[in-house]
Amino acid sequence: MPLTNQQLNEFEELGYLFIPDVFSPQEIQTLYGELPGIFAQDRVENVREKGTQSVRTSFAAHTFNQAFGYLGKHPRIINPVRQLLDGEVYMHQYKINAKAAYDGDVWQWHQDFGTWSRDDLMPEARAMNIAVFLDDVTEFNGALMFIPRSHRDGVHKAGHDLETTSYPLWTLDKDTVSRLVDEGGMVSPKGPAGSVIMFHSNLVHASPSNISPFNRTIVYLSLCHVDNHIRQFKRPEWIAHRDFTPIVPAADDCLMNLTRQSA
Amino acid sequence: MPLTNQQLNEFEELGYLFIPDVFSPQEIQTLYGELPGIFAQDRVENVREKGTQSVRTSFAAHTFNQAFGYLGKHPRIINPVRQLLDGEVYMHQYKINAKAAYDGDVWQWHQDFGTWSRDDLMPEARAMNIAVFLDDVTEFNGALMFIPRSHRDGVHKAGHDLETTSYPLWTLDKDTVSRLVDEGGMVSPKGPAGSVIMFHSNLVHASPSNISPFNRTIVYLSLCHVDNHIRQFKRPEWIAHRDFTPIVPAADDCLMNLTRQSA
Repeated sequence: MPLTNQQLNEFEELGYLFIPDVFSPQEIQTLYGELPGIFAQDRVENVREKGTQSVRTSFAAHTFNQAFGYLGKHPRIINPVRQLLDGEVYMHQYKINAKAAYDGDVWQWHQDFGTWSRDDLMPEARAMNIAVFLDDVTEFNGALMFIPRSHRDGVHKAGHDLETTSYPLWTLDKDTVSRLVDEGGMVSPKGPAGSVIMFHSNLVHASPSNISPFNRTIVYLSLCHVDNHIRQFKRPEWIAHRDFTPIVPAADDCLMNLTRQSA
Repeated sequence: MPLTNQQLNEFEELGYLFIPDVFSPQEIQTLYGELPGIFAQDRVENVREKGTQSVRTSFAAHTFNQAFGYLGKHPRIINPVRQLLDGEVYMHQYKINAKAAYDGDVWQWHQDFGTWSRDDLMPEARAMNIAVFLDDVTEFNGALMFIPRSHRDGVHKAGHDLETTSYPLWTLDKDTVSRLVDEGGMVSPKGPAGSVIMFHSNLVHASPSNISPFNRTIVYLSLCHVDNHIRQFKRPEWIAHRDFTPIVPAADDCLMNLTRQSA
């Protein structure tokens, strides 16, 4: 199902789209079942939270896990993104953000393109994120907070935060965030596992810590127009990919077939 | 207005009551206007957040500020608490928890009576908390999370957390919290400034950090039956009060009169 004109307008106006029920409970279960095996691996792609062994972010699982590989070329993701970015896309970054029960730490206010631009020399904000909920996201477990319309002013001034969490991030200052919230308000899309948020790479967002007993696992696919590929290879390949080949969408039932095979 | 039988039953069953619109916008404004002056004072009662100058908790403002003094003997608070605790009450602890925009840090899972019992030798859980919202409490600014029915099993095992935040607290372990949530679920009462939560001193609760641009100031009155006063004076007087005189409620318009005087 292609995005409607109304959805395209909403994305352009607000900077994001929330779509529930994109993936079925069975498809999510197939992905979820792979997590313990992935998180248990002792590999550089698994960045752990400060002071605990809980995985904060697992990078590039699409390169070494079949189910997450299918998710990385799933037509329900790739096709709408091709529509929004108007052309072929490649995978710039792929990560599972665990935000584990009790241990999941904050992500401070930031724009993703701010980092991609500064660290990877991505030319334009012709790239975006797809967030796939693997857990129900509720008011309790650290839901994302977005500032609608904050994608319209390009890249804001930011500082490189190397201390707050275990993962370096270019973060916005308080005055900028307060001003943007005054103008655009704040939203926090919540919904069951299988829901998807599509958001602009300049949309300002953050997420609080998770002190609840509920995990809040979200997979983020950062997709970029192939013409807009990064020019600088300072960060490791598993953080900022260097394969700019256009993604060929898999079949719509790719994950369901895996589910059937394992049943 | 005394609490109804239904409210008394709800408190007994769930461990808390949420009541919106207890104080008017004008009354809240009168209290709010005092905050900058109180927080700016360089006094031991102002405990600041780890690593910032933001006030985390301001203790005992009822002893040195007229408006907060009136709140501490306000009939809309004292009378229902007398009903719930069945007798005369005194002020065991009084605090303004700022949970300031951007800087407000987490309060880990705990029971208040767990601390009062261990640190102050309060004999029984015949004491309770009143939370008065001075800001709107929303999904964004670090709302309290309660585990309904968790007040029914007495004091749970706890560890003394001296590291997570700037204020020492007896906190519950993850397994206990998960078990209690499995049994009782979780709630997070939200509402406009002027709302009140009344909760049992054994009710397990926590609150996440506040990374939003919105302050989340709450005043907590911890009231104790006069017969149940503390027996040990290890903590400073401004944290665990030693004046066990029964509180005589002020007039219902005490705060409104202040508002009129300053207008």
